[in-house]
Order: sequence, then structure tokens, then C-alpha cells
Amino acid sequence: MGNTTRLDVDGGALARVSREPFPKSRKVFVQGQRFPGLQVPMRAVAQSPTRHASGVLTENPDFLVYDTSGPYTDPSVALDLRKGLPVVRRWVVERPEVEVLPKLSSAYGQQRLLDGRLAGLRFHSDRKPLRAKRGMNVTQLAAARRGQVTPEMEYVALRENQRRDAVLDSRQHAGESFGAALPTEVTPEWVRDEVARGRAIIPANVNHLELEPMAIGRNFLVKINANLGNSAVTSSIEEEVEKMVWAIRWGADTVMDLSTGANIHETREWVLRNCPVPVGTVPIYQALEKVGGKPEELTWELFRDTLVEQAEQGVDYFTIHAGVRLAYVPLTAKRVTGIVSRGGSIMAKWCLSHHRESFLYTHFEEICEIMKAYDVSFSLGDGLRPGSIADANDEAQFAELKTLGELTQVAWKHDVQVMIEGPGHVPMQRIRENMTKQLDACGEAPFYTLGPLTTDIAPGYDHITSAIGAALIGWYGTAMLCYVTPKEHLGLPDKQDVRVGVVTYKLAAHAADLAKGHPGAQRRDDALSKARFEFRWEDQFNLSLDPLKAKEFHDETLPADGAKTAHFCSMCGPKFCSMNLTEEVRALAQQGLDEKSKEFKAQGGELYAAAR
Amino acid sequence: MGNTTRLDVDGGALARVSREPFPKSRKVFVQGQRFPGLQVPMRAVAQSPTRHASGVLTENPDFLVYDTSGPYTDPSVALDLRKGLPVVRRWVVERPEVEVLPKLSSAYGQQRLLDGRLAGLRFHSDRKPLRAKRGMNVTQLAAARRGQVTPEMEYVALRENQRRDAVLDSRQHAGESFGAALPTEVTPEWVRDEVARGRAIIPANVNHLELEPMAIGRNFLVKINANLGNSAVTSSIEEEVEKMVWAIRWGADTVMDLSTGANIHETREWVLRNCPVPVGTVPIYQALEKVGGKPEELTWELFRDTLVEQAEQGVDYFTIHAGVRLAYVPLTAKRVTGIVSRGGSIMAKWCLSHHRESFLYTHFEEICEIMKAYDVSFSLGDGLRPGSIADANDEAQFAELKTLGELTQVAWKHDVQVMIEGPGHVPMQRIRENMTKQLDACGEAPFYTLGPLTTDIAPGYDHITSAIGAALIGWYGTAMLCYVTPKEHLGLPDKQDVRVGVVTYKLAAHAADLAKGHPGAQRRDDALSKARFEFRWEDQFNLSLDPLKAKEFHDETLPADGAKTAHFCSMCGPKFCSMNLTEEVRALAQQGLDEKSKEFKAQGGELYAAAR
Repeated sequence: MGNTTRLDVDGGALARVSREPFPKSRKVFVQGQRFPGLQVPMRAVAQSPTRHASGVLTENPDFLVYDTSGPYTDPSVALDLRKGLPVVRRWVVERPEVEVLPKLSSAYGQQRLLDGRLAGLRFHSDRKPLRAKRGMNVTQLAAARRGQVTPEMEYVALRENQRRDAVLDSRQHAGESFGAALPTEVTPEWVRDEVARGRAIIPANVNHLELEPMAIGRNFLVKINANLGNSAVTSSIEEEVEKMVWAIRWGADTVMDLSTGANIHETREWVLRNCPVPVGTVPIYQALEKVGGKPEELTWELFRDTLVEQAEQGVDYFTIHAGVRLAYVPLTAKRVTGIVSRGGSIMAKWCLSHHRESFLYTHFEEICEIMKAYDVSFSLGDGLRPGSIADANDEAQFAELKTLGELTQVAWKHDVQVMIEGPGHVPMQRIRENMTKQLDACGEAPFYTLGPLTTDIAPGYDHITSAIGAALIGWYGTAMLCYVTPKEHLGLPDKQDVRVGVVTYKLAAHAADLAKGHPGAQRRDDALSKARFEFRWEDQFNLSLDPLKAKEFHDETLPADGAKTAHFCSMCGPKFCSMNLTEEVRALAQQGLDEKSKEFKAQGGELYAAAR
Repeated sequence: MGNTTRLDVDGGALARVSREPFPKSRKVFVQGQRFPGLQVPMRAVAQSPTRHASGVLTENPDFLVYDTSGPYTDPSVALDLRKGLPVVRRWVVERPEVEVLPKLSSAYGQQRLLDGRLAGLRFHSDRKPLRAKRGMNVTQLAAARRGQVTPEMEYVALRENQRRDAVLDSRQHAGESFGAALPTEVTPEWVRDEVARGRAIIPANVNHLELEPMAIGRNFLVKINANLGNSAVTSSIEEEVEKMVWAIRWGADTVMDLSTGANIHETREWVLRNCPVPVGTVPIYQALEKVGGKPEELTWELFRDTLVEQAEQGVDYFTIHAGVRLAYVPLTAKRVTGIVSRGGSIMAKWCLSHHRESFLYTHFEEICEIMKAYDVSFSLGDGLRPGSIADANDEAQFAELKTLGELTQVAWKHDVQVMIEGPGHVPMQRIRENMTKQLDACGEAPFYTLGPLTTDIAPGYDHITSAIGAALIGWYGTAMLCYVTPKEHLGLPDKQDVRVGVVTYKLAAHAADLAKGHPGAQRRDDALSKARFEFRWEDQFNLSLDPLKAKEFHDETLPADGAKTAHFCSMCGPKFCSMNLTEEVRALAQQGLDEKSKEFKAQGGELYAAAR
């Protein structure tokens, strides 16, 4: 991708990271009002003027788009992956509830730090972990409930708004929001209120200062997550950092590091220090590594240490499969695909091996204590989600969902932020039931779903089978969509798969925003379609979710530069161009209308009767 | 693609056509009962046995899938593109209503035949055109209404059934059919009834004897169409034939030849003689070529000759934009993207240039006379469909739809089969309205939609933006989905784009069948998921819509042959495999259940209370 940053660590390339801004795009910043130090980044896409038949030119304004790519696409920022991103949330360390710890609290964190063999792998810094002072709570939810608007909340408000207020024309189709409460203007106070109600979360660990805050909630723009992570079979630290930067370049709002192979701890540190979006993990994966892959050997103490280890690195949300209770496991016995969640199957095996209730469930309040000390949000995992159409919406799945609802109340009692994970594989006609039951069981806590896939028969195309379900469930009210790549069920995604997965989910999320009637959502569609109709090819590409792909496809049949200003394209050729014909039709129609208008007045007839 | 047929015409390669059967697949035939000469092809996918933990093997039956690929995937059939496919519909010529004409009736057809310069391009045969005898009607609708079950109807019944009756286990989720009447078993008599009511069509020109009949209707499996066609800018006859074979290989139920460039007549003949699925065209495209691309020079006489020319070649359905009435054109003046249908813009220009009502509208009954003489079905074109989200569901679009409803009644008066074309670009929340209005306005005539695209902002990914809309509108009741390729709005699709477009639409159509609750639709999902769970990798690939893609993706990370029998995959590696863990969980659960069962009896407690 042209301009890249290359970093050598101990003689090896750590990562080749794409830094090239998108064509005709520049980074702009909106300044905070309550917190004037805030600089909220957006991407401004420059457009060319409209050329009218008369030869007159009309300017088209810059178009602002939501930007998840962080400083990587800002050529004015010097970056060094070895030093990590510049700190955004300078205010965190000054919060009265926060204290700086002298060293890492987790035994495992200490052990890795002192292991000399890891020096070549380690991210080197003198960062000290932050934590809530004893008895205090540093979560956004706690702040929101005591009426405090945090800098994160104003940041989110400005970001969600996308300067919507500055745009006069916001004509768009009426939406069907299924009960979502979409505000015309997003204010910091409104963000606070949504967080306080538990309807939105701002995943923002006090140890993730590089973060550009964002919100996940039904009344905000629909977000998407991209999964990264090495496994025992393939990939490395450098690939993971590279993939993370790549995923946010294309629009990932959060990333999950699902590593299960070697050096999970070190990989995570590299990712976090260089990541401007929230990072989620599934701590049970690492815990299992620590016991050599034997679920029955997991213990609460080991898991607890893993939570602290990851919380002090800055992980913003943890998937915790605390709803996989002993009693639900037999409910999966007759399924076509049993338990397909890794976390779910690990915990199911633990429960059955010990004939005991899950330690995640029995120790849930202690987990809350850790979460609130760092502001790690819960992503309550759906360990019993269906792995096939046949298993959708079954007793096991909904039994777990009910428990997740109960756990939500426990977390909220501790002022810990919560979202709820959802399926999986669900045929279209049964998707809505998932959303309705989730809203009901979990008190409107944000829903975060994987797809769902709407059929099982298209491996190799599951980004699409699932984008259909994702668009639908996003419309119904899901707050964040976990992407699926073309490699789902078949292999690990490479960079191009990540790009396709992210862009596919961006378009599904946007289709959902449009359908809900999210104020201002249609502006980008309108701007792009206007550019298309006016043969402003470059503008059409640049306003799209993947400008490079759009241009590449156009180049394949009409490579010449001149074709980018041509008033036709390869689909129809110049003679058959409906857009050209429409221009002529409009001119003729205007002429005709003028004449008809006279007739109409003269005759008083119903001219367009047939049209109504 | 390995095994190909290469044909030399005057020293040049005409086409390299893929003939390789899909892995572990063989062609099987179901014989007719009313018409014992019928041999309805299906594809049988062989599966490997299930290996149980005990070492015991259980056989898995062959799985039958609907097969659109024609004789190309049958290695026992010798094919020669220069001779065309073997005749399937031998019975047509024996019908009492049919006569054999001594020569082509259209002036243009004769002219091309006598043009010596075209000898090198021409498909050579001594085929004579068939037509209804004077005053007679050869349509499937006319037969259906007089109570006659045609061979085409039994063919369709057997094909739709897919031997559903032979399958005992048909457990699946209840559907939401939005009023569709889906039969448990498809009988020839039921097909007749659906055709008689106008709720389904069997596009089957008496001059397309190579056709393997199929039906389009809300109560049948959802079908998909692939567009082909050269344009002034690119492509050739050989590419079009190659693309047609390629499109049906991946599952196109019909193809439309949208050629607008040179030698349209000859290209169409090559396509038709080698095509086992219905072929549709937009005759106005060719008519426009005949007047040098100037819409205002079009005449009814020239258009009429074009209809006869194409009908005698065997085109199965014509897109006719007869709903673009003079009065509706001004309704498009304020649109963001005006008129985006080529046919629509041509007719709009004609109407305005002449200040007259469209000749397609004023001569509609004469068009019906031609259609019924050959059994060409109407695809009433939506010339005013929206080309952007902004223009969706507007006055122009619905004014035209109402006229299409009126024209449907006129066609039905003539016993001519009809389907109705639909949008276009529509945000999700406004899709249903299209279906409801269409059913209402057009008396349940089948709906045939392009997408619709659910957002405008993802050029390069419009197969996906539109697959979301296609799955939804298919669920709501659309009978056939016109595919969109990744090149939509940007360029002409190449072979890989056609494959991606077709497979994407197959999965959308299947997702719609599942959601409607089409009897038996879930069987393929279940078979594939069972194979997946049992680590029968090859079976998983072979049961999928694109077995080659699935295998290719798996090979990328785990190329070894051994990996195809491995009880894990690259996503999680052996230790983290949830499917493996589930096996263990099931064993433990059974053990646990046995013990718990004793406890339960002893204590009388509510063991799984928390699960309910």
C-alpha cells in the first residue's frame, strides 16, 4: 500500500503498517467545548465541482466521515511503533479516583517482565499501571450515574455528531427504529444519560490512554468489531499489529485480540500501545494456555490473575462466558453442532469435569470488582450460541441469555459497563426474536452479535451470509456487529480477508443506520449518488467505503485517466448511457412542462391523473 | 478450470467452456410419470461416512441438489458448441397449436441470414422457426387455463421437489412466508394451477428446445438471474457463450443477454442454441442499435420486427418498459439520479421528443399477440426504478408500478405469461412496501427484482449491499433475484465477478427460502453443518455452493491432504477446538445425566430449574 512505516526490532521487521491517507482525504479535528483540550479526528473528503451543461461550475463541500484509523492516516504525526501512539487521554491520570501503581499486580505479568528470554519480543516502556484507589470505581458508568460528564463522553458526542449540525439539508427517508431513541443532535449530556441507563458503553480502560473514545449502544451509530489473533497454527506478533492497523484503516470500531498461541501477553502489549480503538479479549483463552490446554485444570485464582494481568495492560472489554452454567450443558447434547464457542466449550468441559457450577458464575461479583478498578467493560459471552441454522434459538441459547440478563443486573449493581454477545447462525425469520429477547432479558444493555449467518451452505462466502443477518439485527437494534471474513469456518483471515470483512460489515452497519433512520445517515449515500450521476468518478470512489477497490475495478475496463472524467462508463458505453439520456430528458421535460403548464391552466384537466 | 471444450470457428477459439463436474458429484435423473420421456437432471453429492468415537462408521446418503448447469457437467454427453445442445423439449413440435415456418419472419433476421460477411460469425443450422398456428396460443398459461398439464409443468414439479418425498427427516424451523402458499409436495397439477392463476411463469419459448424448464413464482424456490452481454466498449461472442456456461455452472436459473454492441443477433443465436436455462433480453437495446443509437428515431414497426426476430430465435422472456408513460417522465426531474434504467431512459426520451405516449404502451396488445405466438413471457420493465437510496419508493416508481399492474391484466387477457421487474436501490425499511404494492397492483404476478441495494456507499461491494436487499425481498415474496456483481457501477464483470455474483445471489435466495419456511430447504444446511461438526472437511466443501472456493480457502492455511481429515482446523488449532471439546462434553454429559437421573428420581427436585 505504498507509503509504509517499517520497524526493525532486533533485526527483524516488526510491522509494515499502511499510513497512506485515502485519496483526497485529510484529517480534521473538532475541538471540545466542555473540555477544550479534546481534538476529535474526522476525515474530510474533498470533492470536485459539478460541471453543468451550461459550463457553469458549482462547488461541492468537503464531506466528513467517521474515522477509526487513528493517527496512522495523519501524515503530520511522526509514529514509532516501538514507542506506541501518542497519549490521547491525558486526563485519566489526574482523576481523583485513579492511582499509579508502582508495578504490575499480576503474578504472570511480573513473571513475563522478568523473563530475560522475552527481551527481544517485549514492548519496552516505563509505563506504570493505573487503577482505582481502594474502594473507588473508575468506570464511565459510575461517573455517568453520579451525573458527571467525562471527557470521553464529550469526545463520543462530537464524534457521533460528525458536525451534523453544520449541515443544512438532512432530508432522508423516515426510519423504522423498532423502539430505538435516536437523537437529532448528540450532546455530551445525552451520552452521559445513555451510559447511566446502561444503554450504551464507552469501553475505555484507564490503562489504554492511546484510545480515541467511542460508544456502543442502540441509539448510536452501529459499530463493527474485527477479530485478530494468532493461533497455534499460524501468524506472529508483527502480523497482528499490522492486521490491527489494517483493520482500523478500513473502519473497525473495535478489535478483539483472540490469540491462542505463543506470546499472547507480549502480542497484546504491542497491539494495545499502538491501538487507537478499544481492544477486547477473551481471557479464558490465555488462562487455558497457562494450564497447557486442559480445561479441567483451570482455577479461579489463575483466571483472576489473568484478568488483572490483561486489565493492567489496558484491555477495554473482556468476553466472559459466565452464562454457561452446569445445568445448561446437557441442553446442547442433541444439537447438530453442539457448542461452537471456544470459551463456551472450555467452560462446559470444566463444569462437567468437576460436576460444579462455573467459577465464572460463582465468582462473578469478584470479577466485577476487578472490572471496576480499571474500567474494563463486560462483553458477556454467548458460550452456547448456535453454530448452525438447525440449532438457532434453542433452549440452551435462551437459557444462557436469561442468565446473562441476571448477570447484567449484578454488573450494574457494581457500576460496571456491560454489553451482551449474541449469535451465531440464525435464519432470517428468527433473528428478530433474538433482539427482542435480548432487550427484554438484559434491560437494554447493548447487544453485540456475530453475524448472524443466515444460511450454512456458503463457506467461502460467510462474510456475505452473515452480513445479511448483521444488517437485519443491526436494524432491529444490535449496537455492534462482529465481523466475519470470507475465511470463516475454513482458515485464518489474511490482510485482504480482513479488509473484505471490515468493509462488508461497515456497509451492513450503514444499511442498518439508514433503516433505523439514524439522523444524517443518508447524507453519504446522497453525496455519492450525486457524484455518480454527475460523472464525478473520482468523487464517487473517494466517498465510498473502499475508494481503492472502486478505482481499481473502474480501471480494469477503462484504465485511461480520461475515463475518470468521461460522461459514460464501460457498462453501457456512450450511446446507451441512461445518465446521459436523463440529462437530455430533463432538458426536454422542462421544455415540455413549460408548455404543459400553459395547457393545464387553459384546460383545468388532471394532467398526471394516471400517475396517482 | 481443468477439463474444457475448445471450439475453433474459422481458426479462432470460440469458447473455452468448463465441463468439469463438481467434486464427488454426479448427474442423476428423475423420470417423468405422466410423461415418461422426461429425464429431469439433478446433482447427487456423495458423502463420506461418519466415524464415531467408537470407531464405528455410519454411512451418509447422497445429497441431491438443484442443478442448473445443463449437460455441461455430464461427462457422458458429447457436446459440440457448433451444433448446440441436444434437444430436450422434443414434444413441442408435435403440439397441435404449433406450426413449422418455412423461414424467419422478421425482415432483420432475413437480412442477417443473407449477409455473406457474417458467415464466419454465424451459428450454422437448418433449424426452422416454430410459431402458433393462426389464431392459436402456445403459452403455458393458455394450456394451464384450459386445464392441461404440459410436459414443462411435470418437469418443473419434479425439479422443484428434488425428491423431497424420499427424505424422511424434514424437521426445520417454522417459516414466516408473508402469505406465500408453499406446498409440502410439488405436483404437476399444482404447478398448472399456479401458472393458471398467474402466480408463476414457466418461461419457455417454443423455439428454445434446448431448455430444461423451470418456474418463477413466489411459491417455488427463489430463483436468480445472471446478466451477460457485450457492450460497445468490450467483449465478444466467445466470451458471452463462455460466461453463460460459467453462470449456469454456479447456479444461474436464467440468463439475460443484454448485449448492446456489434453482432447482437449472432451472439444471441450462439447463446440460445447452447443454453439450457431461459434466456431473457431487452429488445429495445437492439432496436436502438438499428437506429444508430438515436431514441427519437425508434418506431413501432422497427420494434415489432425486433420482437419477431428475437422470438423466432427462442428468447424466453422480454423486458418491455411499457410502463414508462409520457406523464411520468417529469416526475423524475427532481431525482438525485434521474432515470437509471437504460430502457427507461430510451423510452423517456422517445416520449418527450415526440410529445407522444410510449409506443410500447399504445401497441401493448399487438405485443401480446407476438408473445403468445411463441410463448415469450413478459418481464415488465421498471424503467423508472430508483438509482439511489434518495430516489427509492417515489411517485415516479409507484406510478409506473400501477401501470405495470394494468398491463398485467391486458397480458393475462391474452393468456400471456407475465412477471414484473422491481428496484433497484431501497433502504431496508422501505423494501417491504415494494413487495406489498407489487402484489397488490399486479395480482400476484411474480416479482423479479434487481437487488435492491440497501446503501449507495460501497461501490466495489455492491453484490453485498444488494444481497442484503435481495435476501429480504426474496423473503417477503420476490420470485426471482437479478444478480449484481462486484463490478456494478464500475465496469463490466469478468468471469470471476460472474461467479461471485451468482454464488452471492444463490446464498441470498436460499436464505430467503429458509426464512419463508420452504419445505425441505433446511436439509442442505443441516447436512453441511453435520459434516462440519464431524470434521468431514471434503463433504463440507462439496455440499457448499462453491466447493472449489471452500477447498481453496482451507488449503491456504492447512494445505496438506491430512488436514482434510484432521479433527481441528487453523482457526483454533487442536487444543482450542470447540467441536472436539463438545465431543468430550457430550460424553461427560451423558455420564452426568445418568447420575443426575438417579438423584432426580430420589429427590424429586427441579434439576434444570434455572434453564427455564
